[in-house]
Amino acid sequence: MTTGLAGSSPLTGPVLIVGCGLMGTSLGLALRSDGHDVYLADIDETHLAMAEGLGAGVAATSGAPQLVVIAVPPDSAAPAIADALSAWPDAFVTDLASVKHGIVGALGDVEGIERYVGGHPMAGTERSGPLGASDLLFEGRAWAITPHPRSAPAAVALVEHVAASVGATTIVMDTEEHDRAVALVSHLPHLMSVLTAARLEPATTEQLALSGPGLRDVTRIAGSGSTMWQQILTSNADAVGALLGAVRDDIDRLLVSLESGDESLTRFLDRGRKGTQRVPGKHGTSPSDQAIVFVQVADRPGELQRLMTDTGQSGVNIEDIRIDHDLGREVGVVEVYVSPTAADHLVGALVGRGWSAYR
Amino acid sequence: MTTGLAGSSPLTGPVLIVGCGLMGTSLGLALRSDGHDVYLADIDETHLAMAEGLGAGVAATSGAPQLVVIAVPPDSAAPAIADALSAWPDAFVTDLASVKHGIVGALGDVEGIERYVGGHPMAGTERSGPLGASDLLFEGRAWAITPHPRSAPAAVALVEHVAASVGATTIVMDTEEHDRAVALVSHLPHLMSVLTAARLEPATTEQLALSGPGLRDVTRIAGSGSTMWQQILTSNADAVGALLGAVRDDIDRLLVSLESGDESLTRFLDRGRKGTQRVPGKHGTSPSDQAIVFVQVADRPGELQRLMTDTGQSGVNIEDIRIDHDLGREVGVVEVYVSPTAADHLVGALVGRGWSAYR
Repeated sequence: MTTGLAGSSPLTGPVLIVGCGLMGTSLGLALRSDGHDVYLADIDETHLAMAEGLGAGVAATSGAPQLVVIAVPPDSAAPAIADALSAWPDAFVTDLASVKHGIVGALGDVEGIERYVGGHPMAGTERSGPLGASDLLFEGRAWAITPHPRSAPAAVALVEHVAASVGATTIVMDTEEHDRAVALVSHLPHLMSVLTAARLEPATTEQLALSGPGLRDVTRIAGSGSTMWQQILTSNADAVGALLGAVRDDIDRLLVSLESGDESLTRFLDRGRKGTQRVPGKHGTSPSDQAIVFVQVADRPGELQRLMTDTGQSGVNIEDIRIDHDLGREVGVVEVYVSPTAADHLVGALVGRGWSAYR
Repeated sequence: MTTGLAGSSPLTGPVLIVGCGLMGTSLGLALRSDGHDVYLADIDETHLAMAEGLGAGVAATSGAPQLVVIAVPPDSAAPAIADALSAWPDAFVTDLASVKHGIVGALGDVEGIERYVGGHPMAGTERSGPLGASDLLFEGRAWAITPHPRSAPAAVALVEHVAASVGATTIVMDTEEHDRAVALVSHLPHLMSVLTAARLEPATTEQLALSGPGLRDVTRIAGSGSTMWQQILTSNADAVGALLGAVRDDIDRLLVSLESGDESLTRFLDRGRKGTQRVPGKHGTSPSDQAIVFVQVADRPGELQRLMTDTGQSGVNIEDIRIDHDLGREVGVVEVYVSPTAADHLVGALVGRGWSAYR
């Protein structure tokens, strides 16, 4: 928790959190651990009681909140924001929904609209509901703040402060820019993962036995919940549809390139390489700046832990680690990503401790 | 190295490896470490000298090989196989190319065709050339053996033995089935990754700042070499094109579903979830069988090593680890994948050692 800002905090009054799922409850826990008063509300009495029991706040409103945070499912966000603006005429209001233009459009010029500013924390786990909550959920994550043209600067400043105080990195961008951004970096990749995974339904076990870590990486995010994604994608249908249409046009060109086998295919593959290099890695380094050290690990309890201990004691800074599936064999392969200058040292350190390692 | 088979080894004579790149040199090193005689050949004198210097074999043929392994770029494989069948009339011949039907077609009914059987080890690193080689490259990887209708059973048995002796898991499947399988589990996912990454070229830094581990996973494999992939994809154009055409049809339906926002979108997302569950994970478990423990790590040298040591000493069996990029912040998030029953114990162990961990 970043507490250095507490001295100059513009958050002096209570926060009302409407919606005690994973996100709302986590925010309550984080604000409580900073000493703020938090009120909780949820139409689901069980969720409300759980969130209160976890210490995320109190399930009653004993005074006017300074900020109302709407943490309900995307499809219910707009009416809940309008209700909050009306019920608490002196409060600022924000939400956590992942698509914004539909909400702003639905609110129109409702009374008090200048007190609303959107927010979107890029955080979550594979769990849902209050029992999955953590006061650390937002630590180290991005949190987009999305003012509409009439948002009051004080509303923006307050939400920025709250997001930063729970450990997030804030990025202010307007509603449309935000929705195009998440279409590009989140919604399109999700659908591309689903499109790839959907082709695997009729695959035979033999075919799947030839798969490697690449297939697992590309299809991983397709495994997340359909109901939430149905709401997200539908609410950003225009931006997602435009990108998906562009992909379809790329596929049409690609099919011609595949048939001809000419240089256009190589040019297209090069476009992909350039795009990949733009994806932020740790410290903003691109994945191509890293070397991979491969280590053989027997499939016995304790082996991976022993490797981690030995790697930890090698003195080499680890950028990333991947564990390859092992096809039912007794031996797996672990990939350790390090800087190219450190790779040989790590290989030497691991071989010196009895591991089979190479780069 | 699996040495238990040595007593009954059908590999009694020398192996000639044609092509001293990463794969050929690695195979030479692995066979040499099992005590087999290995001859090396390459039209590139520098690669040949390097491979010999590394101990992968000798750069001269002092007797007839029992097996010739063609380890040249895909486009050169068929003529090299034909040359080997003609030059060594008593040798079996295999290759390591990743697409097979074009090779078998080009060979036709060349003299000695029954002595050829294809092979395809699912191994590689981000490096190329002999200096990237390792005798462990094939350990724990799948190796497809692809007989054509006239392949001699003795040829199949010998190549199966060689692949198993260097640590690979062998899977025998016919040429067409193999090519359809790699189109599905490797070539299509590669192109889907490229298609996603290619859309990022014009992305702004602000847009990319909203990206998370999902985007990095989906686009990672698009970063690999274009020249090799151009050859692979072109040689499997029919199978890849058929799948890509099916994806384009899926996109057309998806665009309609996005507009309507009806249940067809949820059904499509469910297809993706089911496909993802079929992707082999460690031990053949699906990723959905795993729980994720999140740990906060300060961006200081030594912190990640300390976490690995403490995780290693927790006694919990680790399935996978991912390190989230940190947006330039001082704190990153590490995701540790464990079995659901072990997650709470790991959280407790890490919190007990001063870490901020949650699930």
